[in-house]
Amino acid sequence: MSTTLLHDARILTMDAAGREIERGWLLVEGDTIRALGSGEAPPRTEAERVDCAGDLVMPGFVNAHAHLAMTLFRGLAEDIDDRLYRYILPLERRFVTAEVVRAGTALAAAESIRGGVTTLADMYYFETQVGRVLAHAGLRGVVGQTIADFAAPDHADMEAGWRRVADLVAEFEEHPLVTPSLAPHAPYSTGLATLERVVRWSADHPALPVQMHLAESDLEVRWARENHDATPVRAIAPTGVLRANLLGAHVIHVDERDVALLAENGVRAATNPRSNGKAGRGIAPVERLRAAGIPVGIGTDGPMSGNTLDLFAQLAPVSMFAKLLAGSRRPLPARDVVRMATVEGARALGLEARIGSLEPGKQADLLRVDLSAARLQPIYDTHAALVFAATPADIRATMVAGRWLMRDRVVETVDEAKAVADARQIALAFGAEMRRIDEGTAP
Amino acid sequence: MSTTLLHDARILTMDAAGREIERGWLLVEGDTIRALGSGEAPPRTEAERVDCAGDLVMPGFVNAHAHLAMTLFRGLAEDIDDRLYRYILPLERRFVTAEVVRAGTALAAAESIRGGVTTLADMYYFETQVGRVLAHAGLRGVVGQTIADFAAPDHADMEAGWRRVADLVAEFEEHPLVTPSLAPHAPYSTGLATLERVVRWSADHPALPVQMHLAESDLEVRWARENHDATPVRAIAPTGVLRANLLGAHVIHVDERDVALLAENGVRAATNPRSNGKAGRGIAPVERLRAAGIPVGIGTDGPMSGNTLDLFAQLAPVSMFAKLLAGSRRPLPARDVVRMATVEGARALGLEARIGSLEPGKQADLLRVDLSAARLQPIYDTHAALVFAATPADIRATMVAGRWLMRDRVVETVDEAKAVADARQIALAFGAEMRRIDEGTAP
Repeated sequence: MSTTLLHDARILTMDAAGREIERGWLLVEGDTIRALGSGEAPPRTEAERVDCAGDLVMPGFVNAHAHLAMTLFRGLAEDIDDRLYRYILPLERRFVTAEVVRAGTALAAAESIRGGVTTLADMYYFETQVGRVLAHAGLRGVVGQTIADFAAPDHADMEAGWRRVADLVAEFEEHPLVTPSLAPHAPYSTGLATLERVVRWSADHPALPVQMHLAESDLEVRWARENHDATPVRAIAPTGVLRANLLGAHVIHVDERDVALLAENGVRAATNPRSNGKAGRGIAPVERLRAAGIPVGIGTDGPMSGNTLDLFAQLAPVSMFAKLLAGSRRPLPARDVVRMATVEGARALGLEARIGSLEPGKQADLLRVDLSAARLQPIYDTHAALVFAATPADIRATMVAGRWLMRDRVVETVDEAKAVADARQIALAFGAEMRRIDEGTAP
Repeated sequence: MSTTLLHDARILTMDAAGREIERGWLLVEGDTIRALGSGEAPPRTEAERVDCAGDLVMPGFVNAHAHLAMTLFRGLAEDIDDRLYRYILPLERRFVTAEVVRAGTALAAAESIRGGVTTLADMYYFETQVGRVLAHAGLRGVVGQTIADFAAPDHADMEAGWRRVADLVAEFEEHPLVTPSLAPHAPYSTGLATLERVVRWSADHPALPVQMHLAESDLEVRWARENHDATPVRAIAPTGVLRANLLGAHVIHVDERDVALLAENGVRAATNPRSNGKAGRGIAPVERLRAAGIPVGIGTDGPMSGNTLDLFAQLAPVSMFAKLLAGSRRPLPARDVVRMATVEGARALGLEARIGSLEPGKQADLLRVDLSAARLQPIYDTHAALVFAATPADIRATMVAGRWLMRDRVVETVDEAKAVADARQIALAFGAEMRRIDEGTAP
């Protein structure tokens, strides 16, 4: 079992007491944090000693909502209102194969490791491929196989979708890093009968999370009103799908009764401010959700919508949006935003017993962050520096389950050059198809 | 005269036609762009040849509103509603000297060069010091000496403030990089009599810009209503200060008549989305301002408010805020945001004849941007990559007036290590004073 002793580090534990250590050490044995403390490190001659030279050591970020393989759609047809129906869905149907999902996810894995994300919640197609790529990269993932009533790239009908779910569970149920998950696409695109089946599936798989887009768009609000004379949350409540294994992504269009209903049933949430902002969808009421006791993690959404997969790009928007809603500087202080990005994100994914903070017995998922850049100086408050000024370039090293995925800013577990080259190759095909769509010559 | 030939570059000219060159070259003679074109570079044996190897070459960013020396207050007392009156103003009065302004501005210059900002509009105290630091760093600046009715760190009364303005003009009137400017703090903090004197000053200095915070806060709206039964814009209109040399910063609280009045009088604007968002102040109606023909540049505000001095951190918020206001993905497409950050920012500062785009005859203020990072791939649209995914770490080199300020990510014109060390030293004094304020033992 490998043993690593990090010393001379500034440590942000993100434990319940919010303990910060000015100069301390942290001992990793195998995949687990064994001990940590302040001052001089204990002599452990058998451990690999890493002098952190004053760098910050903190828990890895939890990306609570993503569509990793959509790196391949990053920046495609930005600012065009009907991009989803005009380009994205046709491209997905024609081009998204197991191979393409592997390529897009590999690029996403490299970007995530550079961005300090150690755990990701994903929803997409060919999800066993996503699980395999993440496992190979050494990342921790909650990988959600999408099921939807519309024709999806990996299932022609709903039964085929359920078979994909069963395969995913069979492959990853006992995996140390990858947790299989079921991802009904959204209320309007799956329908209530399918959600009832989701509830039966959950009864058979009580430990596995369900992920769903929830209360995200005007389209969905209209669907709920016209078909069920209700809000999206109350439209689906009768199916029983609102339970403690549900992670709702976005959760923008909710009223007081919806919030109470979600809280009573232990539902968790993932907010995606850049994606929501860029689409002009609105601002999620994060303060109200948290005040009701709902754990709210921070997600990037897919790079088609949110462009990047690092949480730094999301942290300031999370804070700004809450302050704009309230008309005050007070809501969501930097300290709370860092909590949401780490330990609260872990709660949103149901993984709080294993990750999210640096405490003995927890998994060694951590970052070494170089705080020396001019743009971070001076540092009166580490949380404020992380939320409002740091970028992925400040991360020096990323560890998951005791394994270094990046050291000295070199990614060690993903062939980054190949991932970039593969993505560019696929993008050429996408670009050519877009031109055919514009010319009306697409098949 | 030095001659530099950049070749094998992807070039974003930001000229009126929006010309982009897939693979091209650009010739700099002295401080000026002499020629540019596509394909193979012309043989110029006397020129230093720089192989850009596919990197992007684009105009430098224009930071249209900043308080550079406030790097020293970065992250101080974040999220505290009365931070300005409780900490910042007392700290400024007690500690802000010419020496401290030089130190804070040097740190800001290093950060700006790394962030690709080649021109800055500054408003602060001891502004001749700011001009000297920028000139030494090789940055282009519009440096605005603040005058205000409240006791300021560098003038005990208004007459002393006007003497500072005269000294600034005398020192920099003929400077190739630094343009002196007058900066009445804000309508509520200078008053109408002073603004009338600003108008007389402008008549004597027709080429020099005036900068002022305008329609920024609820406090200011209340002041205008209670004292002048008007909006802030209409309250100050009778003084004649609304003229083509005025750059208004923030411009949030304006109605249709205000926008028309600003447009008719040729006033320019600087929007500061992160600062406004973080303070919960509201969203500036950037689309309406631009639709009325008002040039809107993008500012960072001071690092006390906006935390960083690179425009990348502002670009996505500019776009998101406009989309959120409109409830649509369409407003402020990425291409327009890059325009605002470059050529439109130059117009906002009255410098459009000299900078803002890469065209023969214009000043050679440009960036070399490395677009190879995994998080930028694939690139369907350079503008989208710049607005939604790029960070300062992607900038490889920065040139102003034909002089490299940074090459291969090494800042050459500012002693960065000294700037960081000086800032940390000053921050120790600020921190000690804050503790005295909290204990009630401050003098």
